Amino acid sequence: FNSKLPHVGTTIFSVMSKLAADYQAINLSQGFPDFEGPKELIELTNKYMLEGKNQYAPMAGVTILNERISGKIFELYNAQYHPETEVTITAGGTQAIFTALAATIHPGDEVIIFEPAYDSYAPSVKLLGGLVKAFELSPPDYKIDWNMVKKLISNRTRMIILNSPQNPTGTVLKQEDINQLIKLTRGTDIFILSDEVYEHMVYDENKHLSLAKYSELRERSFIIASFGKLFHNTGWKVGYCLAPKALMSEFRKVHQYLVFSVNAPVQYAIADMLLQKDYFAALNNFFTEKRNFFRQLLQQTRFQLLPCEGSYFQCVGIKNITDEKDTDFTKRLTTEFGVASIPTSAFYSKSTDYGVIRFCFAKKQETLENAVERLTNV
Amino acid sequence: FNSKLPHVGTTIFSVMSKLAADYQAINLSQGFPDFEGPKELIELTNKYMLEGKNQYAPMAGVTILNERISGKIFELYNAQYHPETEVTITAGGTQAIFTALAATIHPGDEVIIFEPAYDSYAPSVKLLGGLVKAFELSPPDYKIDWNMVKKLISNRTRMIILNSPQNPTGTVLKQEDINQLIKLTRGTDIFILSDEVYEHMVYDENKHLSLAKYSELRERSFIIASFGKLFHNTGWKVGYCLAPKALMSEFRKVHQYLVFSVNAPVQYAIADMLLQKDYFAALNNFFTEKRNFFRQLLQQTRFQLLPCEGSYFQCVGIKNITDEKDTDFTKRLTTEFGVASIPTSAFYSKSTDYGVIRFCFAKKQETLENAVERLTNV
Ligand SMILES: CSCCC(=O)C(=O)O
Ligand SMILES: CSCCC(=O)C(=O)O
Repeated sequence: FNSKLPHVGTTIFSVMSKLAADYQAINLSQGFPDFEGPKELIELTNKYMLEGKNQYAPMAGVTILNERISGKIFELYNAQYHPETEVTITAGGTQAIFTALAATIHPGDEVIIFEPAYDSYAPSVKLLGGLVKAFELSPPDYKIDWNMVKKLISNRTRMIILNSPQNPTGTVLKQEDINQLIKLTRGTDIFILSDEVYEHMVYDENKHLSLAKYSELRERSFIIASFGKLFHNTGWKVGYCLAPKALMSEFRKVHQYLVFSVNAPVQYAIADMLLQKDYFAALNNFFTEKRNFFRQLLQQTRFQLLPCEGSYFQCVGIKNITDEKDTDFTKRLTTEFGVASIPTSAFYSKSTDYGVIRFCFAKKQETLENAVERLTNV
Repeated sequence: FNSKLPHVGTTIFSVMSKLAADYQAINLSQGFPDFEGPKELIELTNKYMLEGKNQYAPMAGVTILNERISGKIFELYNAQYHPETEVTITAGGTQAIFTALAATIHPGDEVIIFEPAYDSYAPSVKLLGGLVKAFELSPPDYKIDWNMVKKLISNRTRMIILNSPQNPTGTVLKQEDINQLIKLTRGTDIFILSDEVYEHMVYDENKHLSLAKYSELRERSFIIASFGKLFHNTGWKVGYCLAPKALMSEFRKVHQYLVFSVNAPVQYAIADMLLQKDYFAALNNFFTEKRNFFRQLLQQTRFQLLPCEGSYFQCVGIKNITDEKDTDFTKRLTTEFGVASIPTSAFYSKSTDYGVIRFCFAKKQETLENAVERLTNV
């Protein structure tokens, strides 16, 4: 059998979450909260199920949700996305990412990916016959050298994938990055896939610079967002994509045959929740506290703290602790010390190992305390 | 912009459902019920949300659901599918179809599709660089001439897509078709995508012959099913795929990057519902009555009844009523007479127009009565 993805195994998130379960380890690997989201969202979902909103939602999403998202994007980023033609609800951020790629990547097209990167990007590009041009970033600051990026651009470059706040590094694009990106893409027909699912988790003096804000970037960008991250219910799998009309029209051509539509009662319930404006500001404070708490605890350990400007991930260096490969170490950390994490080599196409592993701190205070107690034994 | 799907517009289901809404027509176009599923399923979903089953489900599905499906398939079809490695939960049947194609179709591969066919098959194949080999079936019986099918087979044939009970024709594969299919594929490396989402709607002396039952076919088949069809909640978007381990492993490589996982609380709730064995038998009687009722009503009209062996669709001939194209007629039927349907030319790659349109009869008795009252004016 001629596999479409011969070099692909099971995603690292499934592998580590399973190992964590098997060894009853504290699971700081896969990114998901161990606390609950707003109860009201559950009550609303129940209400809409009971009211009979149980048949196919419109292909692009339930009208009221598309409208509320459009409104929210305008408030947050002062950007106009027409609810009817420029917003599409998806079965999670991952489906939005895959769909945007499937709608644009022709065999032989090149896609620039900044690594370490969320592990779906590269295999999705390859599955579609595209060529991954990985641009490796390195700790501790994972800064992008745009002059070097420029050298990767060819006349086959079809897309650049960005992810800010970035998973796993927690870095955030700065104004200078945006300026460089505008310069780099000006006059080209390069698309941008901007994965902004951690948009509401940005810390200290950093700001989330959504590409929606910059008209020159907006016109070439698919922007991806996730309600699972916003409402602490990653298992509900609802997200969305923003794109200018011409691009969204191509996106929907694929979306309609890929899933057709998304859970209807949940869409109505989320639409109601989006009226709660304070929720987003509170969310940032909530995660800022978690980040600060976790970072402070980690100082009692031998792990070397890397910066964390955004996202709910904290990367740490392990070089002063071990000579093992990060994959071996994270396995041992799970099985022997009872804490699951993700080796960042899993986020590089070439499995580059910088001796850095990732913890998810979207966890209850006691979970973080217990985890770090175990980590102090390392 | 070089579109991946230059000849694709908005799916006919969205077009007709929107037209129905705009003209407040009775919507017998897109296939979905206008009645509610079991209230218990909603209560269970609510329970699992409140219990906190709100984070990522395992990539292949919630263990208990995979197990219950495996058990049910054994009961129904005497077929063994290992819950861990041969069952995967999907965001609806459509996602399962797309994923199976994405996991197997290389550019240049040929896929045989029996038309009229569900409108996602052909564009999905094309999006993946495959070539559609359409085999046109014609009314009134839409019978497959397997000797002619044989002539379509080449050494590039990678897959045959089957759909029984068939949407839109309501035909059901017979034992003779199965025998022919076994002969045709024996010794080849052709895969089969068997879309069986209407498996519980089979009427009269007909039986659903799941490909799961036939070991020679099972080993090369992806079998697709849908809970939306089973539980009258098409808007929840949960289905599954069955395949032998080697094929399922390829399916999951794509699935994990396409959606990763599916709504978790709903999966737990469905797992509980699958314990209700009487539900499936009752379902068949329930739809048999609807079919009989609708067919009887239609005899008062000038529409010519075609056979309906399965599914919740009834096709009718319009040639004695009009010379219009079926697309024009269905538009007019919606806007002037207030009943929305689907022109079956939308299900042929070449838009072949046999003067046949499709009604969905998964509707309340009064909806069907009101619709047919309007249809008697035609
Ligand atoms: C889709 S599972 C992975 C969740 C996540 O985004 C991560 O852990 O990086
Ligand atoms: C995914 S919308 C279409 C529903 C359906 O299966 C049909 O109407 O044929």
